[in-house]
Amino acid sequence: MIDEAISKKLDVKSLLSSSKTIRLADLGCAVGPNTFDAMQNIIDLIKLKCQTQLPTSPMPEFQVFFNDQPANDFNTLFKSIPPKREYFAAGVPGSFYERLFPDSSLHVVYSSYALHWLSKVPEALEDKNSPAWNKGRIHHASAAEEVRRAYAVQWANDLSNFLNARAREIVPGGIIVIVTPSIPDGMEYSEISTGMMYNCMASILLDIAKRGLISEEQVDAFNLPTYAAPPGEFVSVVENNEYFNIVTMGESNPSPWLTDDVHVDMNEFVNHIRAAMEGMFNKHFAREIVNEMFERLEVRLSEISVEMESAYKDKIQAFYVLQRNDSG
Amino acid sequence: MIDEAISKKLDVKSLLSSSKTIRLADLGCAVGPNTFDAMQNIIDLIKLKCQTQLPTSPMPEFQVFFNDQPANDFNTLFKSIPPKREYFAAGVPGSFYERLFPDSSLHVVYSSYALHWLSKVPEALEDKNSPAWNKGRIHHASAAEEVRRAYAVQWANDLSNFLNARAREIVPGGIIVIVTPSIPDGMEYSEISTGMMYNCMASILLDIAKRGLISEEQVDAFNLPTYAAPPGEFVSVVENNEYFNIVTMGESNPSPWLTDDVHVDMNEFVNHIRAAMEGMFNKHFAREIVNEMFERLEVRLSEISVEMESAYKDKIQAFYVLQRNDSG
Repeated sequence: MIDEAISKKLDVKSLLSSSKTIRLADLGCAVGPNTFDAMQNIIDLIKLKCQTQLPTSPMPEFQVFFNDQPANDFNTLFKSIPPKREYFAAGVPGSFYERLFPDSSLHVVYSSYALHWLSKVPEALEDKNSPAWNKGRIHHASAAEEVRRAYAVQWANDLSNFLNARAREIVPGGIIVIVTPSIPDGMEYSEISTGMMYNCMASILLDIAKRGLISEEQVDAFNLPTYAAPPGEFVSVVENNEYFNIVTMGESNPSPWLTDDVHVDMNEFVNHIRAAMEGMFNKHFAREIVNEMFERLEVRLSEISVEMESAYKDKIQAFYVLQRNDSG
Repeated sequence: MIDEAISKKLDVKSLLSSSKTIRLADLGCAVGPNTFDAMQNIIDLIKLKCQTQLPTSPMPEFQVFFNDQPANDFNTLFKSIPPKREYFAAGVPGSFYERLFPDSSLHVVYSSYALHWLSKVPEALEDKNSPAWNKGRIHHASAAEEVRRAYAVQWANDLSNFLNARAREIVPGGIIVIVTPSIPDGMEYSEISTGMMYNCMASILLDIAKRGLISEEQVDAFNLPTYAAPPGEFVSVVENNEYFNIVTMGESNPSPWLTDDVHVDMNEFVNHIRAAMEGMFNKHFAREIVNEMFERLEVRLSEISVEMESAYKDKIQAFYVLQRNDSG
């Protein structure tokens, strides 16, 4: 559906009237290798479109910008860019919630599993006297409504900044493809597998606090800066932004951890989560605490594997294809 | 003189007629920090020129591409880019002897102390039966004429590839600034300080070979892929290339190692050389051999400090400002 939307909506004739180069960006590309397939796939789609729309013109050149935070391991990324590639490659360090590129310089922006990372932990969660002080939890799953709202507001604000920055950088007719963790509209975060996992993590940390190795306040003050928005909230932010139209959207069940469409390989799942999240825990807790937390996490998750496996069938992934309109 | 040439020759009105962004590239930027000052300096010159030539137009945006080999430490580079900067930054991994950027996408290219690195050791030097087999040496200093010629041909070929790639990437009127190690026309490489140093290095390695720790053939087969061309050879390559004109050029004496305009701090000098070159030796010799070589180098150089200090007054740095013409 994403491919179809790009093929249908991208008017290469119009894009190439003002530029001889098609510029793509992957925002939040990490170290690869998924980004290389994703970028090549989009280039293939554009080349096909060029052959149809501009059969007598020479093929345009492509330039791909790989973006992530300055702390990302660009050395590893750069060493793994395919040596035989059909594009000029560049890395762009910086937050995609701010400007990264010159005015009207991009044609297709792609961002996969990145926009659920908040630019920061919502401030209200760091104030002990706020109703959003997240006692005994590390995420808004199962938390007070004030906590969920603080997360939702921060996320909406971040997405709005993202869209405003991209509105400057993407030419009219240019496209943004977003793939992101999601949650079905109306479902509680504690009902989906990641929510159950965050609750397990908090519970393990509280156990460790009871043994006096960390303080409960350390747990209260730690909050994961990630928010998987329901499609309704996503659409609402885009509709409040005057620069982009939603071309298509959809929800799916990624289920990469269902080994036989039923069971989850809990060890592999925890290893994956640990690789992605360990850094955040390490900033807040001593290394041995983090080690223990992840070791016990696998055991705890196995105890609730029936609920986890059932929850894995939820549509917790969404995609959106947005197109830059002519305004502004 | 470089600043003056940029200010005088860069026609921002013409450049900005086809682009709203001025794009700069530092080719062979290493990990900084010199590159940041160099890029900011060029941006300041262009902004001044814009104020003069286009007093009523809004200032253009700037995008700076930092290029070096994929093995360069881009992580360090990216973490040290000035956070408050007037440009969008990107890193570009790859050899500048090949294409790195889309057609007609750059306005100013800068390259400092990079174009003396050959793309590879000349092949003739790796053939034991060739007259360019460099017995007992690691560089063309004091070597057979065939050796020097093999270096010179490789370098001219590399520079020609560099200019042809840039001819595609730089818009007409765009500028290349090159700062490079050089040697006065007609002077022997063994007469300048780096040549003396390479001869010392070779002599130390041969001493080590005599003790049986490495073979003499290992020394013969090792050659530093660096060539500091005399201005005459540089001009000749540019004149044979149809795309660039020499706007200005000059030679100077960098002498950063003359502590009081007379004496060289040999320890600091060897540390600097070691940081730049150790990697190449490590690929060919065991770590302890390389350690010993650099330890003894400081002693050896101190023994010839009078010659070295005298040689340091030679003009072994050159700069060239080239402008892309309208052809091709």
